[in-house]
Order: sequence, then structure tokens, then C-alpha cells
Amino acid sequence: MLKGLSAFPLTPMSETAIDEVAFTKLFKRLVSAKVDSIGVLGSTGCYAYLSREERLRVTQLAVENAEGIPVMIGISALRTRDVLQLAEDAQRAGASSVLLAPVSYQQLTGAEVYSLYEMVTKSLSIPLCVYDNPSTTHFHFSDELHGNIARLPYVCSIKIPGVPQGLDIAKERVKQLRAHIPSDVTIGVSGDPYAAVGLNAGCETWYSVLGGLYPNVCAGLARAAIAGLSDEAESQSTRLKPLWEMFQRYGSLRVVATIAEMQGLIDEPSLPLPLQSLDETVRQELGSILIRLQNEFSLN
Amino acid sequence: MLKGLSAFPLTPMSETAIDEVAFTKLFKRLVSAKVDSIGVLGSTGCYAYLSREERLRVTQLAVENAEGIPVMIGISALRTRDVLQLAEDAQRAGASSVLLAPVSYQQLTGAEVYSLYEMVTKSLSIPLCVYDNPSTTHFHFSDELHGNIARLPYVCSIKIPGVPQGLDIAKERVKQLRAHIPSDVTIGVSGDPYAAVGLNAGCETWYSVLGGLYPNVCAGLARAAIAGLSDEAESQSTRLKPLWEMFQRYGSLRVVATIAEMQGLIDEPSLPLPLQSLDETVRQELGSILIRLQNEFSLN
Repeated sequence: MLKGLSAFPLTPMSETAIDEVAFTKLFKRLVSAKVDSIGVLGSTGCYAYLSREERLRVTQLAVENAEGIPVMIGISALRTRDVLQLAEDAQRAGASSVLLAPVSYQQLTGAEVYSLYEMVTKSLSIPLCVYDNPSTTHFHFSDELHGNIARLPYVCSIKIPGVPQGLDIAKERVKQLRAHIPSDVTIGVSGDPYAAVGLNAGCETWYSVLGGLYPNVCAGLARAAIAGLSDEAESQSTRLKPLWEMFQRYGSLRVVATIAEMQGLIDEPSLPLPLQSLDETVRQELGSILIRLQNEFSLN
Repeated sequence: MLKGLSAFPLTPMSETAIDEVAFTKLFKRLVSAKVDSIGVLGSTGCYAYLSREERLRVTQLAVENAEGIPVMIGISALRTRDVLQLAEDAQRAGASSVLLAPVSYQQLTGAEVYSLYEMVTKSLSIPLCVYDNPSTTHFHFSDELHGNIARLPYVCSIKIPGVPQGLDIAKERVKQLRAHIPSDVTIGVSGDPYAAVGLNAGCETWYSVLGGLYPNVCAGLARAAIAGLSDEAESQSTRLKPLWEMFQRYGSLRVVATIAEMQGLIDEPSLPLPLQSLDETVRQELGSILIRLQNEFSLN
């Protein structure tokens, strides 16, 4: 499990509530596109800004609408106590797997992070994906720590941040990490601009932000790479470069939320304050990019 | 208000509940020492790991036991919606002021941070201290942004991170920031190792971690500096250098929590998992430091 395209949908919301209708609509687009799995309540799903009750409700909506597609639920929280509750909620609601990042307020030590995963996996009866995302957690895994955690029961995948650009060094990076972890634990790339090179370098999964909005486009790229058509995957990534540049400039969450707002898929504003989607000037730039891309291929 | 020593107590807890008795005991030590203000539910108070209900309970305990000493309550949260609720809770419970950091999961923009403070100050009827702590928030204020926020109603102080070491450049730094903010907004230093140089350089407040544990020692240092006895303040800071080094190595929270555990002031463990206090080897080192310091002066 957890191979191919894992698409991460937004959780649209107002200041008072989740927009359940809009979330379900976004979610069903991924189901229709038959993505390999759906990552609900990841960073793109704004898990960190929601209450336990809201996270449970989103989980329930996802499981109800999944039509057999595996649903992975983000259970990260600052406090282990809360992670354990969220893990229980996700399992009871019927999640296929859970996703856990070592989010921090106080900087965490390696020993603390290992203990977190040890305690949580003890409470699990479904697979867990390790979420390595230093830009939001501010925790840096060593390969040794990845190895120790990957040997814990139920750990099935590691969601790594971007790989170094350039196929050879990316391959070297994946090989290096692979040497530390059991062979049945998959390595998945995130950071959409790095997806093609990451998959071409041997990552088995693409944990994708854009995939939560344009599942067909991203599934095409992932399938090409996994079929060994590395040039085709690279060229599909290259044509999305204007979007990757916007991701790097404004953060992928703000960009996909803004596109979804512009396309009328979700109401505006859709992000939890203090987060704001992009302003009028950037929207115009984004609008031009989308029109140009739509003229070249079907952006869906 | 918010001048002199502002002492930040721990919030001791187990995995299931706050230790109300131990918190009250720590809090009363600060009241007895007649510190200038008490900063409850700061980073040292582990606010980020507590529920709204737990934070309200700690606030109530503080207000009930303050005997006229101003109580500042940390109201930071990732989401503006939650900050507004916490601000209301703090005000209703009788807090003297609130402390707000732009904590982030997704990296925040300057405009988002300004809007956060704008919305929150609109809902306030008590003073607010801006909490600038990039090591936990991962947000870096520009002096211009500090100036814009400091001109909002109810903003009374800025809690800055450490100043550069060396009195002249520290003075330069404080002068630089001072040029951007209204004269009635105080500048307070945090990062205890920088307290003496910060106060000597013109900071009006010391927002202190060690002050939450040893209020008399820290009040002595603050009073010396504020009375213009800069050499005396510097020498009082120098004798605490072994502790500052431990702060820098392990983080001030883990060090003060471990000392409080070692002294039997609070039960062990006292920190919320995944955070752990320090291990036996470090405790031995810490024990030797404390004995050495106790031989030189009264550490209380």
C-alpha cells in the first residue's frame, strides 16, 4: 500500500466551521480520478488548525466517500496525548492508515521523536506513514533515526521532503535512505516540484498537494514515472513549472487554495486565519498561468 | 506596567492533568518574592500543549493567588479563532494583560501577522505584549512590522529575543527598535543569558524563565540593572553562567523543569510528552552546578 499517487485535498473552512459540502466535492474528484490513495488532513488539509471534533468529522466524510480508495488520516499534534486520541479517532472511523509528523513548539530531540513513534505505533492496528517535513515541523530526521522508526511495527512508508535536483544525486539520496530502512517500507516524495525527479530516482509514492486539486494531471505524471518512462514524467513536470514556481514563492497551500477559490470549487476565504489566500495581483498572475496551461493540456 | 522582572512559572503536568497544587506552589513563590509581574502560560508554562479548558484553569489559579501582582496570560495559538477565544477567557478571568506570539505551522507573512494583532487588539480591553520568539514561532519580525503592531491600541510591550552580546551593539539594537515604536511601549528582553546585557542596554523588562524558579536571584539582577548598576547586574549574570550554558545546550524549559523536579518542587515527569526532562547524566552535571552555586549565594 501507499504506492503511486497519494493526493492531498484541501479542507475548505470558514472561521466558524468546515465547509463539509466543498470538502466532499473536492474529495469525490479524487475518487473519480481513481488516485492510489488520499491523504486527508495533511498540511494541505490544514489539520494543525482544526479541533479534534472537526478532524473526526473530516475523517468520517472521507471514509464515507472513499469507494474503496485507501484513506490516510493525518494525526499529528504537538502533544503525544492528543496524537493518541487522534489515532484512536481515525482507526474507529475506518481510516486505512495514519500520517504522523513530529510537529514541535519546543525543539524536539531525536530520542523524544523516537519515543513518540514508539508510543503511537503501540496503540495502532493500521499502518503509519512517517511525515518528514522540516519546513513545518522544524525537526530534522537523521537517516539512522528514520531507520529506527521504520523498524517499529505498523510503519509502512516515509513521506520525505523534496529530493536534491538532478537525477543522479536524487538516486544517491534515495539509495542512502533505503539502506537504513526495511525493504517493505516505501519511500514517498513530497514537495511537488521534486515529484518527477523523486519518482524517477526510485521513490514509490508521490504525496502530492497538486494531486488534491488536479488528480488526473498528477496521476499521469506518477504513472509515467512508475512505468519507467522517466523522460515522459520529467516533461510532464516541466510543463507544470510555472505552478511549481508559484508554490516556491507563496507556499503550495496558499496557491492551491487560491486556485480552488478562483475556480469556484470552494468559497472564499477558505483558509483559517491568520492564513490568507493570495491577493488580487498574484491572482492575476496565477490566472494567466492557468489559461496558458489549459491551452496546452487538460488541467484537471 | 510590564517593567522590571516578569517571572514565567512552569505549568507542571502529568499526561492526564495539570498539577494544580504544584503550579500554585510555584506561583506563590513568585508572589512572595514580589516580582514585578508574572507571565503565566508562556513557553515555559507550556501553553502550546494545553487545551482551552486547562489554560483557563491555570489562568484562574494565577489570578486567585496573585495578591495584586499583575498577571500576564499567554493567549497564543495557531489559529486566530482560538486566540480570540483565549483572549476572552483571559479577560473574563481577570488577567492584567495578555501575551501573544505569531505561532505558525505554515510559515506566516508579515501581512498575516499584522492582521492577527489587529484583530486581536480589537477584541481586547487589557494590554497586550507582543511575543517575538523566532526559535519557537519561526517568524521573524522586521522592525517596521514591530512599529506597525506597536501602534495598535492596547499594545504595551514587546518581548524580544536575546540582544547581541556586547553592551555597545546591544544598545545599538535596542535604540534601533526603539526608533520604530511609541515611547510608551516597553521593550523587554528574553533569553535569560542575555538579560543583564539587555537590561543594561535599555530594555525595561526582563521576561525571565529562571525568574519563574528563582525569583529572588533574578529580581536582584533586574533591580541592579534598572538602578543603573550595570557592572553589578553583569556580575550577577556571570555567576549564573553555568546555568545559562545548560539553557543553551538543552533548552531553558527542560533545564528549569528538571531542576524543579530534582528539588522536589514538582513531581516527575512534569513535561507533556513528547517533551522529556533531562536524563540522569545531565542531572548529575546539573546537580554539581547547583551545589556549587548554592555555596556561593542563596539560590532562590
